[in-house]
Amino acid sequence: MKTIKRTLAGLILIVIMIPLYFCGNDKTHSKNQMVRLAKIVIDSAQLDSYSALLKEEIQASIRMEPGVLTLYAVSEKNNPTHITILEIYADSSAYRSHVQTPHFLKYKTGTKDMVRSLELVETIPLIPDIKIK
Amino acid sequence: MKTIKRTLAGLILIVIMIPLYFCGNDKTHSKNQMVRLAKIVIDSAQLDSYSALLKEEIQASIRMEPGVLTLYAVSEKNNPTHITILEIYADSSAYRSHVQTPHFLKYKTGTKDMVRSLELVETIPLIPDIKIK
Repeated sequence: MKTIKRTLAGLILIVIMIPLYFCGNDKTHSKNQMVRLAKIVIDSAQLDSYSALLKEEIQASIRMEPGVLTLYAVSEKNNPTHITILEIYADSSAYRSHVQTPHFLKYKTGTKDMVRSLELVETIPLIPDIKIK
Repeated sequence: MKTIKRTLAGLILIVIMIPLYFCGNDKTHSKNQMVRLAKIVIDSAQLDSYSALLKEEIQASIRMEPGVLTLYAVSEKNNPTHITILEIYADSSAYRSHVQTPHFLKYKTGTKDMVRSLELVETIPLIPDIKIK
């Protein structure tokens, strides 16, 4: 009977510890995140071609790279050539490996003559673990 | 036997249709989304107070309003008084109800004298159904 009670107590402890373990990991994870705003202005004559290449690159990155947490791109309604991308990487090594992928290099080379200006703004998120519902 | 076969066929059809129904709904949902960048400059002497009020407002909105899909706020590393918020609402009615909530009104009133400038930029997302992993 004592052995059963001990086993049961041990099991309950494990069940309680599992979510705590992952919870802790998640927080460590958020701390290392690299969060950036890319502000890009595109040549208006090449906006459609640019958008197609960016879309392809983002979809490949999200699908193939676990460390690319999001690349949320928007264009301004009143200035469609003005693009902003909220870039979230799990950590700086995820970013370094991202810029070496074939899909990123294809985008970078393919859009070289379409980009009028590019500003990369390093940021700090107010609530790092926030998601999109 | 015929009746069993028909029931089985009907059941299989329902099982196939359920995910398609939700999938379709999701797309309609994305189409109505309101996606915006709020660009805010804060009085440097009041940045900490402002950040605390913004954090409280965002956490309440995400918790209580299903139509607030995200409010992802960042401050620039080199210009911490420069805040950008990626705001995603399920539709314009979710937005209209958001700005009438007690938590939003508390934030708006409480930060009135902290905000140096506010620019609201309406945008179109490149991939509306993208999430944060």
